[in-house]
Amino acid sequence: MQRPKIAYTASRPYSSHADAFRQGTSSPLALLEAGLARIEAREPAVRAFVALGIERARADAQRSTQRWLDGVPLSPIDGIAVGIKDIIETADLPTGQGSPMWTGFRTQRDSATVQALRDAGAVIVGKTTTTEFAATEMFASTTNPHDPQRTPGGSSAGSAAAVGAGFVPLALGSQVVGSTIRPASYCGCVGFKPTYGALNRGGTYDQLSHSSAGVIGATLDDVWVSSRAIASRVGGDPGYPGLAGPDALPQARAPQRVVLLETAGWAAATPGARAALDASVEWLRERGVEVVTRAQSDKVEQFERQLADGLLELTLSIIAWETRWPLESYAQRDRSALSHAMLKRLANAAAMTQQDYEAALARRTQLRAAFAALVAGSDGVVTLSASGAAPLGFASTGNAGFAVPASILGVPAVTLPVLSDENLPLGLQFIGAAGEDAALFSLASWFVDEARVD
Amino acid sequence: MQRPKIAYTASRPYSSHADAFRQGTSSPLALLEAGLARIEAREPAVRAFVALGIERARADAQRSTQRWLDGVPLSPIDGIAVGIKDIIETADLPTGQGSPMWTGFRTQRDSATVQALRDAGAVIVGKTTTTEFAATEMFASTTNPHDPQRTPGGSSAGSAAAVGAGFVPLALGSQVVGSTIRPASYCGCVGFKPTYGALNRGGTYDQLSHSSAGVIGATLDDVWVSSRAIASRVGGDPGYPGLAGPDALPQARAPQRVVLLETAGWAAATPGARAALDASVEWLRERGVEVVTRAQSDKVEQFERQLADGLLELTLSIIAWETRWPLESYAQRDRSALSHAMLKRLANAAAMTQQDYEAALARRTQLRAAFAALVAGSDGVVTLSASGAAPLGFASTGNAGFAVPASILGVPAVTLPVLSDENLPLGLQFIGAAGEDAALFSLASWFVDEARVD
Repeated sequence: MQRPKIAYTASRPYSSHADAFRQGTSSPLALLEAGLARIEAREPAVRAFVALGIERARADAQRSTQRWLDGVPLSPIDGIAVGIKDIIETADLPTGQGSPMWTGFRTQRDSATVQALRDAGAVIVGKTTTTEFAATEMFASTTNPHDPQRTPGGSSAGSAAAVGAGFVPLALGSQVVGSTIRPASYCGCVGFKPTYGALNRGGTYDQLSHSSAGVIGATLDDVWVSSRAIASRVGGDPGYPGLAGPDALPQARAPQRVVLLETAGWAAATPGARAALDASVEWLRERGVEVVTRAQSDKVEQFERQLADGLLELTLSIIAWETRWPLESYAQRDRSALSHAMLKRLANAAAMTQQDYEAALARRTQLRAAFAALVAGSDGVVTLSASGAAPLGFASTGNAGFAVPASILGVPAVTLPVLSDENLPLGLQFIGAAGEDAALFSLASWFVDEARVD
Repeated sequence: MQRPKIAYTASRPYSSHADAFRQGTSSPLALLEAGLARIEAREPAVRAFVALGIERARADAQRSTQRWLDGVPLSPIDGIAVGIKDIIETADLPTGQGSPMWTGFRTQRDSATVQALRDAGAVIVGKTTTTEFAATEMFASTTNPHDPQRTPGGSSAGSAAAVGAGFVPLALGSQVVGSTIRPASYCGCVGFKPTYGALNRGGTYDQLSHSSAGVIGATLDDVWVSSRAIASRVGGDPGYPGLAGPDALPQARAPQRVVLLETAGWAAATPGARAALDASVEWLRERGVEVVTRAQSDKVEQFERQLADGLLELTLSIIAWETRWPLESYAQRDRSALSHAMLKRLANAAAMTQQDYEAALARRTQLRAAFAALVAGSDGVVTLSASGAAPLGFASTGNAGFAVPASILGVPAVTLPVLSDENLPLGLQFIGAAGEDAALFSLASWFVDEARVD
């Protein structure tokens, strides 16, 4: 097998749109119109959006364009076009949670994240599709922008598809299992799942105890700058200071030592994906980075065993208990409007006790301590973002094995569109220590600089 | 001045309604109808409810009555009539948050707490008034059931008034400053603000970082049993196991040593309230309880100074930052629909930075550690629940000085209707260590047993 190529394949420009807006080589209105033209051409096949708010978007982009002309942008992301996952409240568009029970539901307010983005001058283009309640079942018919026969991944399906198709350079998602990292991998996007609590989930219908807002973008720069624009305006979840670090992309810093984790996803990884990860490790070693594997370290081996020991079941039982109350209420209202997967989750929850949940939380706490010990003294973890290219068909949104660890550990993860499998995008994932989001982006920034090919 | 009397003045029966239902001396339907008769007679003056759901309540009470007759109640609180603060979602009634912007807003689902109560057989009677967004301004015209010229307190105004007037034996509230303990004190109710996270706030429009669900009731027994009925079904906030302890009221246990705290409320306390607290201390000492005061202990003196050092300002700045995003969104929609107090809060929030918030959180963490050290080796803290009887008029919902500490510390507090001021109810407050809610109820249970007068 030929050695896979490592290349940063995300759409250009590599850097923030701010540079082009400042230099006058682009404008918010031009950016929006280019995206709308792509939407017109490809949205009938991709189906990334539940709702579009074009009129307001054009007016907002017009105002932003004027601010750049006047030299008074509200922020570096003033004028960036954004898609919003349909579990996140928006004042002008309904929030349907991917469920027939919530279709057309309006709160007439913006979520914390949307409020912050608008405050920074961002242009909200529309609401993107999600699986039912950001979980497993897909009522929407979104397709992968790189192959209409394949899933875009989930649950942030529309957000990843919209960015991957070039409809918008940025979109908000969320993640509690693999809902940002996996679709970003399948659709060839940068994806960021921050440290637990780092981006305010107010006004988002996802308040699970290890879920977080997710940011999907065409470039690493836009993803970081937008995330900081949110955190500096509305902070993190209540009780959490919020994402810390510079407002601009953290300076690239070469890692000295990273830990390679196979995770439970490895068993499902395709030959192409395995080869791509092997090539990434070799690529890192060629650049002087020490890559520690389970074969070389008892500590890594022990942690891999913990990851392989029912981690997905653990996360699903935590989620089941925490969603028992809304699901029970929904079931009483209209059982037929819930998917089979949701009814099964509800049944699992009903079989749990407060003590079961407490035990699950205790195991999670123990895993977090073990991870903190594992990464201490290294620059982070490297692994795949998904088990391979997006699978054919739409029966499943794909295997989430590689994304589960960072979710349950509450630590930051970033996926970079630098690998491929079956000639389709595959992400390489870096995972950092809790609260070390900025350091993770320094590593990712170095990687992108090294991997860029023109 | 004559020594104030210490007496448990809450409406009878002292014990759970379950005893009367089991014995057949009462029934859920009889309980509901007695409450509805009082509502018919006094609600025009008290105005505790925003909305009543009488038809469904009667059907639910009828079914519950049958279950007791058949000897198959769903729980000890099967058939208890409950009022729900209007920031908490209910499937059948709108949730207005005390704000003209949200009047009539429907989600068609029950909150976690309401879902659990219904699952336990409770009968939801209606939605009770709240100040705007459970904060300071009162758009509703609820009056104190003991004196129509006085405030019922806030923000859980209607819940406390409804229980105090005998409309319902139980009501849900919430607290982030003094919203459960203060109105319960003014209206002569038992009030419980649990440890942070102990009761699931899912579906409640109050997700601040030290707010919690509150339970207001006519008896200590009902308050505890209902709280446990909620926690055992839907647990605590996501990531928190939820209120722990026996399903029945924890056994009475005489305290050996309690710490007396004056708090910042003392400066505003009326002569009658001061005399009542002094009498309570004497009463405790007569029963062999060691009461440690600031005069006797440097540790207490130091902690009192920390409490007096801008604690309300600290809590208000935390709240301001955390409510910045919805208030900004509301202001953009319709500034005129927000009270002056909310616009001021928004202005305060807009002047804050992420770093200011982080510093406020750090101070809160430090205070919590100091409190844990203070109460270690004691059975808890005793203080007043309010600075006196409910004030005359409706311009303010009263001084919250005595309630602020337990809120910001995230620790459990219970107010007992055992004191009086101006011949009106005044609560005595016990505060426990974080997570020690059951021990706090053992203490309160002992107090109630001692204080009962027939």
